[in-house]
Amino acid sequence: MSFVSALQAAWRRSDSLLCVGLDPDPARFPTHLKGAPDAILRFCTGIVDATADLVCAFKPQIAYFAAERAEAQLEALIAHIHARHPGVPVILDAKRGDIGSTAEQYAREVFERYGADAVTLSPYMGFDSLEPYLAYPDRGAILLCRTSNAGGSDLQSLGISEDGERVFERVARLVAGPWNRTGQLGLVVGATFPEELRRVRALAPQVPLLVPGIGAQGGDIDATVAAGLDAGGAGMIVSSSRAVLYAAGDTSFADAARRVATETRDALRAAVRRHATTR
Amino acid sequence: MSFVSALQAAWRRSDSLLCVGLDPDPARFPTHLKGAPDAILRFCTGIVDATADLVCAFKPQIAYFAAERAEAQLEALIAHIHARHPGVPVILDAKRGDIGSTAEQYAREVFERYGADAVTLSPYMGFDSLEPYLAYPDRGAILLCRTSNAGGSDLQSLGISEDGERVFERVARLVAGPWNRTGQLGLVVGATFPEELRRVRALAPQVPLLVPGIGAQGGDIDATVAAGLDAGGAGMIVSSSRAVLYAAGDTSFADAARRVATETRDALRAAVRRHATTR
Repeated sequence: MSFVSALQAAWRRSDSLLCVGLDPDPARFPTHLKGAPDAILRFCTGIVDATADLVCAFKPQIAYFAAERAEAQLEALIAHIHARHPGVPVILDAKRGDIGSTAEQYAREVFERYGADAVTLSPYMGFDSLEPYLAYPDRGAILLCRTSNAGGSDLQSLGISEDGERVFERVARLVAGPWNRTGQLGLVVGATFPEELRRVRALAPQVPLLVPGIGAQGGDIDATVAAGLDAGGAGMIVSSSRAVLYAAGDTSFADAARRVATETRDALRAAVRRHATTR
Repeated sequence: MSFVSALQAAWRRSDSLLCVGLDPDPARFPTHLKGAPDAILRFCTGIVDATADLVCAFKPQIAYFAAERAEAQLEALIAHIHARHPGVPVILDAKRGDIGSTAEQYAREVFERYGADAVTLSPYMGFDSLEPYLAYPDRGAILLCRTSNAGGSDLQSLGISEDGERVFERVARLVAGPWNRTGQLGLVVGATFPEELRRVRALAPQVPLLVPGIGAQGGDIDATVAAGLDAGGAGMIVSSSRAVLYAAGDTSFADAARRVATETRDALRAAVRRHATTR
């Protein structure tokens, strides 16, 4: 099954656009986990098991594991998600971007070593830097398009002289068209700029959009959903990390994560109901 | 000492622009190393010890280690370079690019865990995605500007409507000016486009340029040096990987690597002599 098909099945089954981002910061872990050798794995599986029925995907951020020498715990975490929660796609947030021979190694890392269903990539090095990932037909690649940080405008918002498009619009158009011959691509578009999200959706009507920035980064749920929904009333993977992970800092962290994830899922669902009917 | 000062000292001491890229591919290792649990470390330290006096830097490519679950060998390799060959800067080729809170984790990974002197980064997410790396005042960050792969033109060569600059020229100008307040930045510019390398040098006269693409990727040494040299007759880190690493596939691999590295160092040195005097 392709990544996009798996994602569509997950949207249908969960009736949720929520993706929980797994950015484990040991400094913010509950006291009872601090110092345990597998604290990262225990924290993340606690979050995963408490929220798996509420989400369309999980998104571990590899930097948090790499900084802690916790690659083995990342392997175990993704294996845990596949074993206990089959059908919930795992997007490894790694934002890789390199030439072909090196990209082959990164593709082996994310798909063979970690068993991720999809990976985030940077488009800066162009189409051939994506091709090694597309050699895995059942996996997906989600390209940075318009990011939610302040510096996201530095290059992404520059206008292109050829046709007046902005750089992120060019990325969206390439990913909707010539780069997506195999149907394996998605786009990362931050939630902080709903008008630009709407523009990306117009340029890429059928491409899954990974939308970080809900919760701690302050994106507005209703405006985000209104801007990014596809014609089928889905098409978005709306990611929340810190607001869910650190909802409580004690032994109740998983229950608190479930409560916040439920509220976010419900708010997203209500927004879908409002905006899907107006199309 | 800052990364740029360390690099300048390395250029002076070695009289070499050569950087050996460490992209260890176990399939290409000599038979006597194949299957050994520390084959990657043994192969790379063999190359390093055979070439350290010929280079201005080493550049391990993290993807090759990550695909093989060899993070511990990468840690040991960089520690080995620092211990045995002090003063030879290590550039970790990782091409990271993410928002601030995640970039902090990547910066911890490359500088604290691995002890690299500099890291390659993608500019796509803008200035604030670089800032966490600049918090390490003795380390450097080398940003992708114009890459040597075919798809490098897809985004990097687009003209910007505001002033007609191409995207990679904008990156060069930002890195030469507003982004480089702390003097910690460099640029990656492929060797396959000497005219564009010349343009980057003109826009960023004092910024170190990391130039991959010599050797296996086919860049011409004379044209590359003529285009990229700075006013002091250095300023370039010219990287060769496969041509050096796999010069021989048997027990003589380190001697063969030294021979090819010497030839490449000498060719670079001769080109410097030709072109530095014409300025």
